[in-house]
Amino acid sequence: MTPDSHRRVRPAGTEKPAPLDLTHHYSAVTKRRVPSKIKEVYKFFGIPNILNLAGGLPHVDYFPFDTLEAQTAKPERWTPTPNYPGEKTAVSSSSSSPTSSSGPASAAHIVVPKFVKEDDPLKKVDLDTVLQYGLAPGYPPLLSWVRQFVRENLEHTTLYKGGPGVVLTCGATDGFSKCLDLFVDQWTEGVNAVNTRPGILCEPYIYNSILSQAEPHGVQFVTVNTDVAGMVATGPGGLEDILANWDPSKGKRPHLLYTVTLGHNPTGVVLSVERKKELYAICSKYDVVIIEDEPYWYLQFPSASIEEAKSRGLPIPQQRQRQQSSYSSPFKSTSSSSGYAFLDSLTPSFIALDTDGRVVRLDTFSKTVAPGCRLGWITAQPALIERFERINESTTQQPSGFTQGLITELVLGPHQTSNSKATIKNQQARSAFARLRTTRDRAAFSGWDTSGWVRWLEGLRGNYERRMVRMCRALDAGSTLITTTTTSDDNDGDSEWDAVTVTTTPLYTYSWPRGGMFVWLRMLFHSHPLWNHPAVDGPTLARALQVWLTRKPFLVLVGSGTMFSATTKVEREEGWTFYRLCFAAEAEDNIGLSGERFGEGVKAFWEVKDVDVIRKLLSEVALEEDEEGVSQLASYMGC
Amino acid sequence: MTPDSHRRVRPAGTEKPAPLDLTHHYSAVTKRRVPSKIKEVYKFFGIPNILNLAGGLPHVDYFPFDTLEAQTAKPERWTPTPNYPGEKTAVSSSSSSPTSSSGPASAAHIVVPKFVKEDDPLKKVDLDTVLQYGLAPGYPPLLSWVRQFVRENLEHTTLYKGGPGVVLTCGATDGFSKCLDLFVDQWTEGVNAVNTRPGILCEPYIYNSILSQAEPHGVQFVTVNTDVAGMVATGPGGLEDILANWDPSKGKRPHLLYTVTLGHNPTGVVLSVERKKELYAICSKYDVVIIEDEPYWYLQFPSASIEEAKSRGLPIPQQRQRQQSSYSSPFKSTSSSSGYAFLDSLTPSFIALDTDGRVVRLDTFSKTVAPGCRLGWITAQPALIERFERINESTTQQPSGFTQGLITELVLGPHQTSNSKATIKNQQARSAFARLRTTRDRAAFSGWDTSGWVRWLEGLRGNYERRMVRMCRALDAGSTLITTTTTSDDNDGDSEWDAVTVTTTPLYTYSWPRGGMFVWLRMLFHSHPLWNHPAVDGPTLARALQVWLTRKPFLVLVGSGTMFSATTKVEREEGWTFYRLCFAAEAEDNIGLSGERFGEGVKAFWEVKDVDVIRKLLSEVALEEDEEGVSQLASYMGC
Repeated sequence: MTPDSHRRVRPAGTEKPAPLDLTHHYSAVTKRRVPSKIKEVYKFFGIPNILNLAGGLPHVDYFPFDTLEAQTAKPERWTPTPNYPGEKTAVSSSSSSPTSSSGPASAAHIVVPKFVKEDDPLKKVDLDTVLQYGLAPGYPPLLSWVRQFVRENLEHTTLYKGGPGVVLTCGATDGFSKCLDLFVDQWTEGVNAVNTRPGILCEPYIYNSILSQAEPHGVQFVTVNTDVAGMVATGPGGLEDILANWDPSKGKRPHLLYTVTLGHNPTGVVLSVERKKELYAICSKYDVVIIEDEPYWYLQFPSASIEEAKSRGLPIPQQRQRQQSSYSSPFKSTSSSSGYAFLDSLTPSFIALDTDGRVVRLDTFSKTVAPGCRLGWITAQPALIERFERINESTTQQPSGFTQGLITELVLGPHQTSNSKATIKNQQARSAFARLRTTRDRAAFSGWDTSGWVRWLEGLRGNYERRMVRMCRALDAGSTLITTTTTSDDNDGDSEWDAVTVTTTPLYTYSWPRGGMFVWLRMLFHSHPLWNHPAVDGPTLARALQVWLTRKPFLVLVGSGTMFSATTKVEREEGWTFYRLCFAAEAEDNIGLSGERFGEGVKAFWEVKDVDVIRKLLSEVALEEDEEGVSQLASYMGC
Repeated sequence: MTPDSHRRVRPAGTEKPAPLDLTHHYSAVTKRRVPSKIKEVYKFFGIPNILNLAGGLPHVDYFPFDTLEAQTAKPERWTPTPNYPGEKTAVSSSSSSPTSSSGPASAAHIVVPKFVKEDDPLKKVDLDTVLQYGLAPGYPPLLSWVRQFVRENLEHTTLYKGGPGVVLTCGATDGFSKCLDLFVDQWTEGVNAVNTRPGILCEPYIYNSILSQAEPHGVQFVTVNTDVAGMVATGPGGLEDILANWDPSKGKRPHLLYTVTLGHNPTGVVLSVERKKELYAICSKYDVVIIEDEPYWYLQFPSASIEEAKSRGLPIPQQRQRQQSSYSSPFKSTSSSSGYAFLDSLTPSFIALDTDGRVVRLDTFSKTVAPGCRLGWITAQPALIERFERINESTTQQPSGFTQGLITELVLGPHQTSNSKATIKNQQARSAFARLRTTRDRAAFSGWDTSGWVRWLEGLRGNYERRMVRMCRALDAGSTLITTTTTSDDNDGDSEWDAVTVTTTPLYTYSWPRGGMFVWLRMLFHSHPLWNHPAVDGPTLARALQVWLTRKPFLVLVGSGTMFSATTKVEREEGWTFYRLCFAAEAEDNIGLSGERFGEGVKAFWEVKDVDVIRKLLSEVALEEDEEGVSQLASYMGC
C-alpha cells in the first residue's frame, strides 16, 4: 500500500464527502461480528398490546429497588477561573471555596422513580427502563444528551457527511479495550509473521494502563519524538520520519496512533491546533487511525504560562486573545460558537480536524463526575460506532443502569408530567395552560442540563487550576539548592572578611502543566554528590530518592517516570529521570504542603554523600516487597 | 495429549490436593498479561499521613454526588413456594400477592453516605471508596460478602485445597467474554491451521448471545446429544463419544464446555447431580474446562413434575424426599447444610463436584436484582481468578461503583458507628454498653444480610414458579385441536342418527420447565393441513405461525427455536420446530392470558388451508423489515 492511497480525494462540489471506509483496518474478529439473532423479533416489539414472550427479561416488579435517589451538587458549587486571564484580574489562587455552601442548601435531591408514564423513549427515565436490559449504544435519554453535547457544543464538527456518532462505554479503559478489539489482530512471536506485528505510535511517555492493555495482544509501541509542545510531526524521529522510513522487518507499519492531546498524561502538554494539523496530515497520508483519549479536555489552564513566568521572574508571555481562541473555522462547524464561552476558549481535539473520519476519541465521566461511574463514550464516524455497538453486545452489553439512571437524572432533571391536561375544558384555557406549563417547566427544571454541565466543568477547571498553581509555586520555590560555603582566612581572626561562596544547584526542571492533573519533573541527578560514585547509577539514585521522599519528615509519594515509559529503551535512557506528581488526589490543603515537602526532601537527599544510605533505603524496600498485603492491592486502579 | 494425561492422581492421604494447573489452556494473550506497573508504588500507600501524589485520582470533594440513596423492598415482599411440595399443601397458584404490601410501609430507605469513618476496608461503605477508582477483583465489602455467600452458603465446597475464589464481573455476558479472553486463541480460516480451531461443547440449543460472542473468535460449537434430562454423557452423540472419536481435521478437540445446568435456557431442564457426575468424569478424562452459566440457579421448581402430571391426568410422580435433596456428601463440604433450607433443597451446580478445579461458574445479579446492575461474579479456582483479575484490569477495571455501592448497602445495611464510646465513663458502664450496642446493632440492622438475600430469592422463586404453573396450565389446555365432523345420513331426515367423528390433533408437545424462565415447545407442524403443500416447507410454516400469533386477536410474540440453535445443522434439522415462551417478562395478570392466546392462535392457524394466507404473512414481514426504526432497536439486549 502506497502512503497516499488512503488520502481523501476531495470532491469539487461544496457538499461534504462521506467519511473514509476504514474496514481494511478492522480486526478479523470484529469483521466477523454480526448483530444478535434476536433482531429477528424486534420488529414485533412495537405492536400495541402485544404480549411479549420472546425476550428473556425479568419483570420490573421483581427489582428490589423502588427508587434510585441521590443528593447532588448544584453546578455552581465551585468557582471558575478566567478563560482569558489577561482580560481581567485572575482569581486569587486561594479562593477555591465554593460559590455557595456545600451544605444541603446547595444540594438538590434527585429521584429516578420506578415508573414514568411517557411514550418518548428519550424522555422516559425510570427504573422500568434503566434497570432493565437495554441498548448496546447506551441508555437512549443519556445517549441522546451526550450526542447532542458532542455534536452541538463540544466539537460541533461536521467535517464529513453526517458528522460523527457516539456510543457509550464503561469508561475510557473499556473504550480503549474496544479499540484494540476493533483494530488489532492478536500477534504472537514465533506464530505470526513478523511483518504482521501490530504497532501503535505514541509519545515516549504514556498513560501506563495503555501499555498493559495492548502489549499482551502482541502490540509494539513505537515512540515519536516530542518537544515542549508535544509530539513532533517532522524532522528526525518525528511522525513522518518514522512512517516514511518504516522497516517492515520490525513489524507492520503502525496503523494506530494513541495520544492524550489536552492535558497529556504524564507530561501535562496541551497540543496546539497548529501541531495537530501537521500530525493529522501525516496520519492521513499514511492511513493511520488516531485514538485520542481526552479525560482532561476541560482541564486546560490558561493562566499556566503567565503564572509560570511570574513565579520564575521571566517576561510575561503574550496573553491569549479571545479571537484567536475561538476556533470558528475550519476546526469547528458553520456555527462559530459552541454557545458557551468556556468551551469556545478551549483548544479543540483532533475530532475538530477530522475530515477523513479517522479519529476515535475516548471520553469518560471518571474525572468530571467520578471514576466509580464506569461510564464514558466514544466519538467516531458512524461506521466505526456501529462496530463498537457490536463489540458492546458481546462484552459489557451496556454501562450500569444505576450509573446511567442517576447521571441522566442529574443532567436532565425530573420528568415533566402533563397529567393536568384532563382538567382543561376549552381551547382558550388550553392555550393559556400551555403557556403556563412552559413557564412552569422552565422554573421547575432542576436538572443541570447542558448549561449546568458546562458550569460544573468550569468550576472543576477552576479548582484544579488553582491546585496546579499552588503546587507549582511550591515546587518552583524548592527547585534549587543554594549552598553557602565560607572560606576563613587563617591569618585573620575577623570573620567579617571570610570569603563566602554561594553555589546554586538546580535540582529539577519542568514546565507548568498546561492541562490535566500532573506535573512532570525531570530530576537533575547529575548534580547529586553520588552521581559519579561507582556503586550507584542514575536509576538507583532515582529509585532511592522516591523511597527517601516517603520517609519522615517528607512523607510524599511520587510516581516514577519508569512507570510511564512507552518502551524499555525510553525507560533505560531517561525514563528514570522523571517523576510524575498528581495535584488532583490529595486534600486541597495538602497541595502546597506536598510541593514544599517534595522540595525539602529533594534538597535533603542532595546532602546525602554516604552510599550506604542509598543501599539501606533500597534494601528496606526490597524487604517490604515480600510483605503480605501488597498483593492484595495488586489490582488497584487509578493512574 | 492422551485423554487421561490431565486426570488427577489422587494422593493417598486425606488432605485435599491443590487444584490442577490449567495454564496449558490459557490463551496466548492472557498468558502475557502482567499486573499493572503501578504495583511498584502500592507498598507505600499504607504509610501513615503520606501525601499521595502518585495515583492519578480525582478528589472525592469534586464528585457531584453527596449521597446515593434508594427505596428498597424488604426481603419478605414476595411469598415463597414450598421446597418439598409433597410435604404440605402447595400454595395456591394465584396467591402471588406480596406477604406485606409493596407500599412505603414495606420498603426501606438506604443511604450510601459521602464519608464513613472506618479503618476496615470491608466495612467502609461510602462514596469516598465506592465512587473512586477501585480494585479489579471488586469492591472489598461486596466481594467479601459474595465470597462468603458462595463459600459458606451457596455451594460450600472445598473439594480442593483452599476452595474456589471469586471475582466480580459486569454481569454474565461480561463474564463469558472474559472466559473467551482467558481460554480462546482467536482463529481465522485460511490463516490458522485447521487443527488449532477452538471448539466449545454445548447442547443443541443454547443461549444465543453465547454464539454471537464466541463465533467471531473463530470458535466452532460442537453439539452433544440431549435427552429430557439434559446433556447425555454416554452413547452415540454423547459427550464421551464426541471426545473419544474426535477428528482433528475438524479443529482442535474442544477444551471448553458451555452449559446452563439449573433452568437451562432455552429448554428449562435442571441437570441432576447424577448426570453431572457422569459428565464431569468425562470432562476430567479429556481435560475439558466446564463453563457453567447459572443465572437461574435459584429458580428451580419442585412442583413442576407434580403439577404437570396433574394437569395432564398422569400418575403423580414420586415426590422429592427431603433427605435426598440435601446433598450433604460428597457434593457439599463437611457441613451438611448451607444453613438455609431453601438452598439445601436446590440441585447444586458443577462447582459442587469440582475436585479438579476445572469448573468456571458464571453468576449474575441480572435476575436476582435487575439486569441494569451489570454486576455478577465468577467462581473458579484461585489461579483462574487471578487471571480474570488481570483481564478486568485491562478491560472494564471494575463494575460500576453506583451499582456496587447500592447493592452493598442493600445487603449489608448501614455502617454501625461506635461514636458513643467517648461517653462511657468506666469499665462497668462500658461492658453494659457493649451488650446494649450488640442488641441495638441487631435491632437497628436494616440491611438484608445473607438471610434476607436468601429470603428474597425464595420469594422470587415463588413468584416465578406460580407464573410457570399458570402458563403451563393454559398451554396444556390449548395443546390439542379437537375437530368434530358430522356425517349426515342422506336417506334419513333425523339428525339424531348422524355419525359424529371427533379428531384429536396434538399441536405441540413439551415438558413443564423444571427451572428458569422459559417454556420450550416443540410444534407438531406435520399435522398442519398445509404440511405437504409443495409451496410450503416446515420452516416457512413455523415463521408464518410466529407472525400469525402477533396479529389480532392473538397478539403474542414468541421466540423461534432457530434463534437458539447452536449450529446451522441443528437449525435446519429441527431448530425451526421449537418456540421459546418466557413467563418472566409480562405483567403477572397476562401470564395465563398469553398462554391462552397462544393456544387459540395455534388452533386457528391449524384451520388455515389457503397457502396465500401464509404468503401474505411473510411478505408483510419482509416489508416491515425495511422499515425505519427496526435498526434503532438492533442492539436490544435481554434474551
